[in-house]
Amino acid sequence: MDYLSKDKLVILGAAGAIGSNMVQSALTLGVTSRVTMYDPFEKGLQGTAEEIYHCAFPGSHVTWTTDIAEALESADYLISSGGAPRKEGMTREDLLKGNAEIAAQLGKDIKAYCPDLKFGVIIFNPADITGLVTLLYSGLSSKRIATLAALDSTRLQIALAQHFDIAQDQVTHCRTYGGHGEQMAVFASTAQVNSTPLVDFIGTSELPEERWEEIKQHVRQGGKKIIQLRGRSSFQSPSHQSLLMVKAVIDGKGYPWPSGVYVDAPEHGFEKIMMAMETELTHVGVTWQIPKGTDRELEALNTSYEHLKELRDEVIEMGILPSLTEWNRVNPHL
Amino acid sequence: MDYLSKDKLVILGAAGAIGSNMVQSALTLGVTSRVTMYDPFEKGLQGTAEEIYHCAFPGSHVTWTTDIAEALESADYLISSGGAPRKEGMTREDLLKGNAEIAAQLGKDIKAYCPDLKFGVIIFNPADITGLVTLLYSGLSSKRIATLAALDSTRLQIALAQHFDIAQDQVTHCRTYGGHGEQMAVFASTAQVNSTPLVDFIGTSELPEERWEEIKQHVRQGGKKIIQLRGRSSFQSPSHQSLLMVKAVIDGKGYPWPSGVYVDAPEHGFEKIMMAMETELTHVGVTWQIPKGTDRELEALNTSYEHLKELRDEVIEMGILPSLTEWNRVNPHL
Repeated sequence: MDYLSKDKLVILGAAGAIGSNMVQSALTLGVTSRVTMYDPFEKGLQGTAEEIYHCAFPGSHVTWTTDIAEALESADYLISSGGAPRKEGMTREDLLKGNAEIAAQLGKDIKAYCPDLKFGVIIFNPADITGLVTLLYSGLSSKRIATLAALDSTRLQIALAQHFDIAQDQVTHCRTYGGHGEQMAVFASTAQVNSTPLVDFIGTSELPEERWEEIKQHVRQGGKKIIQLRGRSSFQSPSHQSLLMVKAVIDGKGYPWPSGVYVDAPEHGFEKIMMAMETELTHVGVTWQIPKGTDRELEALNTSYEHLKELRDEVIEMGILPSLTEWNRVNPHL
Repeated sequence: MDYLSKDKLVILGAAGAIGSNMVQSALTLGVTSRVTMYDPFEKGLQGTAEEIYHCAFPGSHVTWTTDIAEALESADYLISSGGAPRKEGMTREDLLKGNAEIAAQLGKDIKAYCPDLKFGVIIFNPADITGLVTLLYSGLSSKRIATLAALDSTRLQIALAQHFDIAQDQVTHCRTYGGHGEQMAVFASTAQVNSTPLVDFIGTSELPEERWEEIKQHVRQGGKKIIQLRGRSSFQSPSHQSLLMVKAVIDGKGYPWPSGVYVDAPEHGFEKIMMAMETELTHVGVTWQIPKGTDRELEALNTSYEHLKELRDEVIEMGILPSLTEWNRVNPHL
């Protein structure tokens, strides 16, 4: 068994469905031989660890702990799926507040225990907010924290492949940017179907306008659809894709999907936000560019940004994030 | 993304925890690019398929169906986790009867739809019985059907590694044979700890006799322990290990653990049974040898065999398996 590195990868929320899949995926993908599993739920954590041991990955070094300091100590990489799930009677605001608070604590813990973290992926909901909050309090450079944003684009890819009845990977360069769910900006102009621009099909008999609208709507509802079908949130695809993000930073061989990234570019109309952009993952972490698209697509990206800004400002109102003018004092990189 | 083959691998029970993990593992391990998912539970199956599509494995060709004929048609490999779970109020016998019937139907379906199957792994409980029943009705050579038996041995490996506080893979050649659970035969004489025979430690201060007995007991209870800790049966380790079995048959690079195999060797006292033996997985499938061990260990293997024989005879009593003299008529290979 070959591993790409012996760097310490910490999986936060390792007792959960996503986290436990991540530990297995990290070792199966050979991302690193050294994985530390953290979760406050000791029984489930130990059970997951035992299962991983029973897999018997040769050369692996897997540990588990319920002590966040021990977990994060000298971590090189981390992925956090460790948010609180939405519980009965909880409002959207309750969930936002709870997870933003968890993210703030995670950021502070990173600062305290692994200030040399090379790269972290935050995937607990709402990821653009939890990623932003984690980044701020971590004190890290914005290249070092990203959020998982690929699934909207892979959902677009498979939906188009199914429509055209071709292999999934014959649909290329699918892109959604901005936030997730209803507010995502689905780009048509980047995608190619069998090497032909998707836009050449839209509005023709091969892809009537209303069918394209349906596909976009299907993509926006992709996460909800999984819950309807499986009776639970998706866990295999977020696990797999977030490991590929870490893998790309370790092996430098690229990552084909957008990531959520910190953007502070008032010249482009985006200020202190985390959202899916055209990104690259390399040894230095995540870097971004303004997406290429039609005026209408870029307008949709702006709308998505405005929505994320509202969410961010809500978290400022809650007192979990300081006001924008204070950010640089908390994290000089921002 | 490189795959070892383009052969058709069918995962039966693909909507379940084990089966859905298998589909992901097959693609992550690169065992084959072509996976067909089968489950009678359509909603969950579609949801799992969607998740796999959202993983976006390049070059993969993944299909799903609730039609067993379509699923098995020209299959090269299959893994079945598709038994019925134990339900409230069900006796052990109910479970045995139900799953043996499912196995008999699976064998008949293999005969009807994929008589050229290269290799199948049966993992639903009790696997030695369901594997045996499947093999009989499939009409296949006994090299082509195996059961998962590794987890007892990997549990022994990690338990010893934890006791000696060394890396898991510094404990080598751990072996349990025969059946599973209380009846397994745990061998001490094969194992090495840091290249020193385990037996050199047993009964010394480094591994007192009573501690060794505890470890064996811990291994026998390994599956139950996972249920206690996680609140569910193990699913990650059976998935991972069964995929490694198929991988070994495809790449011919060997598999380091025992598998369950059909044994009919009256000269050794074993007649028409499926159980964990010293095995090899190669391009031709599974082949076995009589384990090497002390007289006492071989006696334990006999005891384990006797238990499996009782189970087998119970299934004959139920009318699901014919009497032993009829087997050759049902499957000329046996």
